[in-house]
Formats: sequence, structure tokens, C-alpha cells
Amino acid sequence: MNVTRSELERRRDVFQEKLQQGAVDGALLVQQMSMYYFTGTMQCQYVYVPAEGEVLGLVRKNMIRAQAEAGVSLVPLSGFASLPALLGENERLGLELDILPATLYLRLAALFSKSELTDISRPVREVRQVKSPYELELLAEAARMVDAMNRRVPELLVEGKEEIVLASEAEAILRALGHQGVSRMRGFSQEMFYGHVLSGESGGVASFLDSPTGGTGLSAAQPQSAGRKKLAYGEPITIDYAGIYQGYTVDQTRLFSIGPLPDELNRAFDAALAVQDKVCELLMPGKSGEEIYLAAAAAAAKAGLANHFMGFGDTQVRFVGHGVGLEFDEFPVLAKGSPHLLAENCVVAVEPKFVFPGIGVVGIENTWVVRKEGARKISLTPDEPVSV
Amino acid sequence: MNVTRSELERRRDVFQEKLQQGAVDGALLVQQMSMYYFTGTMQCQYVYVPAEGEVLGLVRKNMIRAQAEAGVSLVPLSGFASLPALLGENERLGLELDILPATLYLRLAALFSKSELTDISRPVREVRQVKSPYELELLAEAARMVDAMNRRVPELLVEGKEEIVLASEAEAILRALGHQGVSRMRGFSQEMFYGHVLSGESGGVASFLDSPTGGTGLSAAQPQSAGRKKLAYGEPITIDYAGIYQGYTVDQTRLFSIGPLPDELNRAFDAALAVQDKVCELLMPGKSGEEIYLAAAAAAAKAGLANHFMGFGDTQVRFVGHGVGLEFDEFPVLAKGSPHLLAENCVVAVEPKFVFPGIGVVGIENTWVVRKEGARKISLTPDEPVSV
Repeated sequence: MNVTRSELERRRDVFQEKLQQGAVDGALLVQQMSMYYFTGTMQCQYVYVPAEGEVLGLVRKNMIRAQAEAGVSLVPLSGFASLPALLGENERLGLELDILPATLYLRLAALFSKSELTDISRPVREVRQVKSPYELELLAEAARMVDAMNRRVPELLVEGKEEIVLASEAEAILRALGHQGVSRMRGFSQEMFYGHVLSGESGGVASFLDSPTGGTGLSAAQPQSAGRKKLAYGEPITIDYAGIYQGYTVDQTRLFSIGPLPDELNRAFDAALAVQDKVCELLMPGKSGEEIYLAAAAAAAKAGLANHFMGFGDTQVRFVGHGVGLEFDEFPVLAKGSPHLLAENCVVAVEPKFVFPGIGVVGIENTWVVRKEGARKISLTPDEPVSV
Repeated sequence: MNVTRSELERRRDVFQEKLQQGAVDGALLVQQMSMYYFTGTMQCQYVYVPAEGEVLGLVRKNMIRAQAEAGVSLVPLSGFASLPALLGENERLGLELDILPATLYLRLAALFSKSELTDISRPVREVRQVKSPYELELLAEAARMVDAMNRRVPELLVEGKEEIVLASEAEAILRALGHQGVSRMRGFSQEMFYGHVLSGESGGVASFLDSPTGGTGLSAAQPQSAGRKKLAYGEPITIDYAGIYQGYTVDQTRLFSIGPLPDELNRAFDAALAVQDKVCELLMPGKSGEEIYLAAAAAAAKAGLANHFMGFGDTQVRFVGHGVGLEFDEFPVLAKGSPHLLAENCVVAVEPKFVFPGIGVVGIENTWVVRKEGARKISLTPDEPVSV
């Protein structure tokens, strides 16, 4: 299904307003999801969005496919040097400096030596953080996908099964349901496969990833998520896998176990639900990412679990949620120091989790849409832990 | 299994020789696989390799894990501003400008305003292109993994099954065998999941990817590999999936069908084998990536298939193979214009393929190690097409 022209025009209009506010004449975008967002195709080399006028896709490979998918004007890009002629005059030209490789930046700086180059990544991400009815429909489909997988997890839980085998089964279910496989993160050096399948002490192993959980992974070369540890009786097993449908991500985490969990972990899970309740009260337009994080941290402290909240010791992360959409790390971020303000139809994954080194992780994650009348849950799976 | 200290010292020594040759005082590396390659851990924020002396890993998160995995000295990185003090004086400082985001580049340029910054990416990639006995062992394991999956493909081939379902099954087999999931490419905006599962006309659909094949994928937001097309009788079905073991990649493609293939495609497959033979004769230290590509293209032309070689029409790619290792797009590249010279123990995936729009793709891909005495095949699966 192609992105409709009216949807693309809406996105352009919102972005152009930001360009005009920032006195930027145009933006030359190169990040794949930005290009897809503004054109409807990934078959562009560059996308130019002027402060006024039409979006232009510059295509090296593949034009046939770009023409079939895009809802904007397209021109073939014959060579790098032709860029200025195609773009016209730009006194201030916006570039996504957060992801643009230095080599390409330096070449563009030489090519556009008469232009002032400015970082446009924040406005791009601000446009993308507010989802349209069309995008919310795709997110609803992603929610159905990940819900369908989660409902089949109980039948997969067998003592002695390796985490990686459980992961392979969950992944195959998602994939057959149309999960696109590839997970995208904008942050430099961040990477993600489907998410994290963690059992027992694996849940207490942190990684370089900016995430409350890590897991051992299979080796030091892929040091997160499922490893060779075998599922055991009475330990927390968390499935933090997203559904991704036509690019759009619904991130959620559910808690499972074989046999009952220790009381301490059940109490921590209830505390995670309490933090979730607190956060959801605040998921309103105008609230800041920081005040929501601080409220979440206060709720965790009230439960006596401050030291276990979102990690343990010096691996604690200082956020409780993050925007999701075409990527796992969209705006707004619900974090200490976050400058982001929530807006109507922002979509965020809220993931209060408590980490107990040597024991595991318990918590909950759901994806929500911010509404004036109060947050609406996009995730479909019941929050309750499932014990088999 | 940790990377041994002696292996890390060997890598450092080779790189330091290149730094000294280039009159570079030290290299500050940030690319994940470069950092893993020189330290044995992915838990570093930066890695500093001086032209003489010890490699230093600068760790923000996660130090406990870095200490357990790394075979180099580690220091905690308290703040960005502390970098110059930790690195000491560098008149010429090497950075990986091909992947370093512009924002970070500009911050580093300000911080190291007294240093001349130079692009060190090519030497890094040249070091990594030559594999050690240790790395060849890991590649052998990756070859066993992908071979085991390929041998099970015939039982999965059923008329009417969607490509994506076949893909889900092949992926689950690989994953349960310890495939790390995540596939890595260094090239900007390139991305890869497991590889490509393509049937019939899907094999003739190109994408933005710098690859002879694309496939429809599931949507314009993920426009490559398996889609919803159903497997049919008498069409080519190619599985171009890699094994990845402890970071190391063996890339291979095999041809399958349900029922016999048309003679035209069988002839094209034989032509692919002939191209492979020609390339393998030339996989010798000192040969250039360009001469090998040109010989391959000549062999394809001799078979009367120049227009179908490595794509069709304006989506043809101008390479016949690429280095593999920790990433899918390592040096040397066997391509038109490639400046790369092969060296003993370079590892390359050679993938002569012929694309017929509306019909499909046929071809072969194997991973080879370059040896003075002639190329040695790392891939284990027999080349022959399998018809069920």
C-alpha cells in the first residue's frame, strides 16, 4: 500500500512550517526513514524539501520502483555535482547532521560553499513524532501482529529450552505474520534485532545499548538479547519484541514464567504497573519528557525500588519511555533532561522495568498514543504476567 | 569465547604499521565493528590506537562487561571533554570519516583543534580484510551453519507457500543454530536482514540496495527480500542467506525449484558456474578487484548474457563479489573501478548472477579465502541446483 499523496502533503506542510520558522530555505535529507516519510519510497538517494513548493526525490537507484511508490516529483540524479542546480538557491540549507557521515558532509559543504549549512534533524524528528490517522492504522496492525505472537508464547515455554530457540520460534511467528524483520534505530552505534528475549539472570546483564535490559546475546560480537541459557523453573522470562508493520513499530514487553515467581518479583511487577499508571496520567499534550520521567522515578522510589529502576548500579538508564514509529528511538523521549514536549498523537513506548542482578528483570512495556482526553493504549496484549 | 590477546596484538601491529606509513599519530575509532575488532568488546564508546603503544578502550557503558571481554586496557570515559587528555598529543589524528556523523565530527574537530584530522577508514578496512587463522575458524563455523540450513530447504518447498513463510522457516533454522540475527553493513544507508529469499519474478525486482537482487519485500518501507508472493512450479527460487557466527559472515546463494527449470535458466546457471570458475582462477594475492570484475563480465558476455549479468538494464551493479567478515561489505570489492588489491587470506563472497525481468534470478554465491596456491572454498553446500 503506497503512502497517499494527501498524507505526504500533510507531512510536507508541517515540515515546511518549521523550515519557515527557522528561516531555512530548504532541507536536503539523506536518512532513509526521513526520505521514506516525505516521499513514500526508499529508492531515493536524496530528498529535497524546500521551505515553499514541492518535495523532490533525487533517484539514483531504482527509478522504476521509485515511480511506482513515490507520491512526489522525482528526477534522476546523474552525478553529485548536479545537486546545486537541481536544488536552486538556498541561503540556509538544512542537513541531518546527526546521521550524515563526515565525508559526505564535507563534500556537501564544498559543493554548497555559498550556503550556510544548518542541522535540521530536530525539526525532522519533531514532524515525525506526531502520527496521523493513517500511521495509527498501521500501528494498530503492528499491535495485532505482536499480540498474536505473545498469545502463542505460553505453548513455547519448556524448561531446558535455550533462550535462542525460544527467540527463533517467536521470530518465526512474527515473520510469518508479516513482520518486516529489520528494526531501525537512528542513534549512532545503536542496533536492535527483534528485541530482547531474556530469562532469569540474563535479564540482569546490561549491555552498551541505551536500554534498561541487555542480555548476554550469543557472543561479544552480538552482546544483547537471547543467548544459550536454558529456561528454568520459577524465573522471570521477558519477551520484549516489537511488531513492525509497513515500517511502523509497536514495542511491548510481557512477563512469563514456568511455575510461580518469587514474591519479591511479583511485588516489583506490581510496582511497574503502578509506574505505568503514573506515567499514563501524564501522557498529555504539553507535558515534558523530563517531568514524566521524574514522576516515574518517584513512583519507583515510593515502591522502594529506586536502585533497581531501569537497570541497576551504573548501568541504570535515565528514561522510562521513548517515541516509536518508523524507528525505535523516535521523539519524544521520556527521560531525565529531555527537552521534548508531548503533543496530541505522539506515540510512545512506556517501559517501567526493575532489574535484579543475578535474578532477572520484571516489568511491562506498552505503546500508547497521546490524547488530550488521556493516553490510549495501542498494544492489545493483556498486561498480566502469564505463568505456565 | 573472547578474542585472544595475541590475536588483538596481531591486529594492532598490522594497523600500527599502516598508521606509521601514513604518518598518523593515532586513530580514534568509533565504528562498532572496528572497536570490536581492535578490543574484543562492543562495550566501548571510543577506541584509541596510537601509532606506537597500547590500544585503549574508552568505556561509558558497560564497564563490567567490557572488562570481561576486552583484551586491551580500558578506562572509564567520564565526559567528552576528557578525550584529549586521555589520548595525549596527536599532530595527525585519524578518524573514520566514512561513518562518523557530522555532529560528532564537528565536536571532535573543535576539541582537537590543534590536530590535523585525517580519514583513517581505508587503512582500518584494509587491516580487517585479511583474516587470521582464528577468524577463518569462525568463518568455517558460519559455513557449517548456513550449510545446515540449506540442506533443509528442500523439505520446506511447497507450491503456494508465501516467500515470507519460507523465509521465516529458514531464519528460524539459522537462529536456532546460533545465527546472531543482526547483519551488518558499513555502507551508509545500506541495510540487510538475513539476505534474500526470492522466487520467480521477485528475483527480477531490483531495489535501492547495491546488490544484483532486491525483491519486493513486504512494503515500500522494507523493499527487499521475501514478500507475499507464493512459490510456484517451475520457477527459480534462490536462497541468498548468510551464516553469521560470533560476528563472522559466510555469504552464499543456492538455487532451488519445485519441478524442473526452463532450459534458458539452466543454461544461465551453467554460465554462472563458468563465471565463478573464471573468478576463482584469479583469486590470488596481487590481483586487483577491477581485473577480476572485468574478467567476470567478459565471461558473462561470452555466454551471451551481458545484459542480464548482476542485474538488468539500469539496475545492473558493477561488481561480482565483495569482502565479508564482520560485515557484508568489507574489502576487497571485486568491482569496476575497484582500487583494491587482493592479499593472502582475504575472504570474498563471489556471486555471479543473471537476472531475467519477469522470470527471476539464477546464479551462485560462495565465500572463498584467497590463497597463494589458489582460492579455497569456505562454503560447504554443493553448488548444484536442487529441484524437488
